[in-house]
Amino acid sequence: MAFSPLVDELVESLRCLPGVGQKTAQRMAFHLLERARSGGTRLADALNQAMDGVRRCDSCQNFADTELCPICETPERKNGTLCVVESPSDLLAIEQAGDYRGGYFVLMGHLSPIDGVGPEEIGIERLLGRIREEGVSELILATNPTVEGEATAHYIADRLDGQNVLITRLAHGIPVGGELGYVDGFTLTHAFRGRKPLSD
Amino acid sequence: MAFSPLVDELVESLRCLPGVGQKTAQRMAFHLLERARSGGTRLADALNQAMDGVRRCDSCQNFADTELCPICETPERKNGTLCVVESPSDLLAIEQAGDYRGGYFVLMGHLSPIDGVGPEEIGIERLLGRIREEGVSELILATNPTVEGEATAHYIADRLDGQNVLITRLAHGIPVGGELGYVDGFTLTHAFRGRKPLSD
Ligand SMILES: [Zn+2]
Ligand SMILES: [Zn+2]
Repeated sequence: MAFSPLVDELVESLRCLPGVGQKTAQRMAFHLLERARSGGTRLADALNQAMDGVRRCDSCQNFADTELCPICETPERKNGTLCVVESPSDLLAIEQAGDYRGGYFVLMGHLSPIDGVGPEEIGIERLLGRIREEGVSELILATNPTVEGEATAHYIADRLDGQNVLITRLAHGIPVGGELGYVDGFTLTHAFRGRKPLSD
Repeated sequence: MAFSPLVDELVESLRCLPGVGQKTAQRMAFHLLERARSGGTRLADALNQAMDGVRRCDSCQNFADTELCPICETPERKNGTLCVVESPSDLLAIEQAGDYRGGYFVLMGHLSPIDGVGPEEIGIERLLGRIREEGVSELILATNPTVEGEATAHYIADRLDGQNVLITRLAHGIPVGGELGYVDGFTLTHAFRGRKPLSD
């Protein structure tokens, strides 16, 4: 680059953002420097605080500032129903659909032996412990309708075999091969209402 | 949002980046939190230092860490040719093409009376002073081929009327290797007007 070490480093650092290549990073850096310095400083503060302060909820594994996330701290949401999702954006999509009022468990991934992701890495023991301790009566397996998501759902269902827990899967409505985070709220609500036992 | 104040604030702050809406900001925040915390911290540092430390070059107005940018500090580039561009990214594109070896003047915009951008805001007096002091013999007006860019170029040319400076404009036309059918009408009109005898 023809500029200055500070601008170079800013462009290079912006490339850690997903989907941001050299050209986009340049455009972002110039925009901040020309027109949005206070926005840039605010972003720096937010990054520092989040990278340092955001942890996992002790109960559901979702991102949280404290031991328990706001959902797990809400007693009404411990209603015997637990919804297992792969990622925080899946949880967010379901929350934004607005219909579901139970608890969550966020795997932060899915089983993927090739990448070294086994049951321990996605917190299966913690999930099974919660189901026992909280007396969960219905477990909604809302992993993605992908090969890995289905395999993860089946693994969890197998581990609960013989226990008195109704295991359900979200209904049709989610596009095959699609990702939960990109599904609109209307479709998601329908998928929730039409959920079916896994044995079907 | 269903998470934590820290995650909320990170998502909100990321939206100051150009072209980043709610969904993209969420995706970026989750990516950083899940897989790239050190990248996020590096970005925070780079932002803080750049927002605080990047100034304008005293000579060409481009972004710089010190009084003069690296190009203006290179004596060989004071060769009597000055290229006027609207933005740092235009300068960068020319530098990356690699052929031009003269100096620059970065307007950081173009004349736009409606937005209150007059000659003073884009540094015209500073430009005219440099042309006199450095004995510039050719001024290349590489503003964009837009209404505002053309008007800015003509304004600068008018201000230099009667002075012994060759004023040139970049040739507009069909991109090298481009196909006629994919060229926009504006470019095509320019290409027609700038047509040359085949023997050239
Ligand atoms: Zn939680
Ligand atoms: Zn300079």
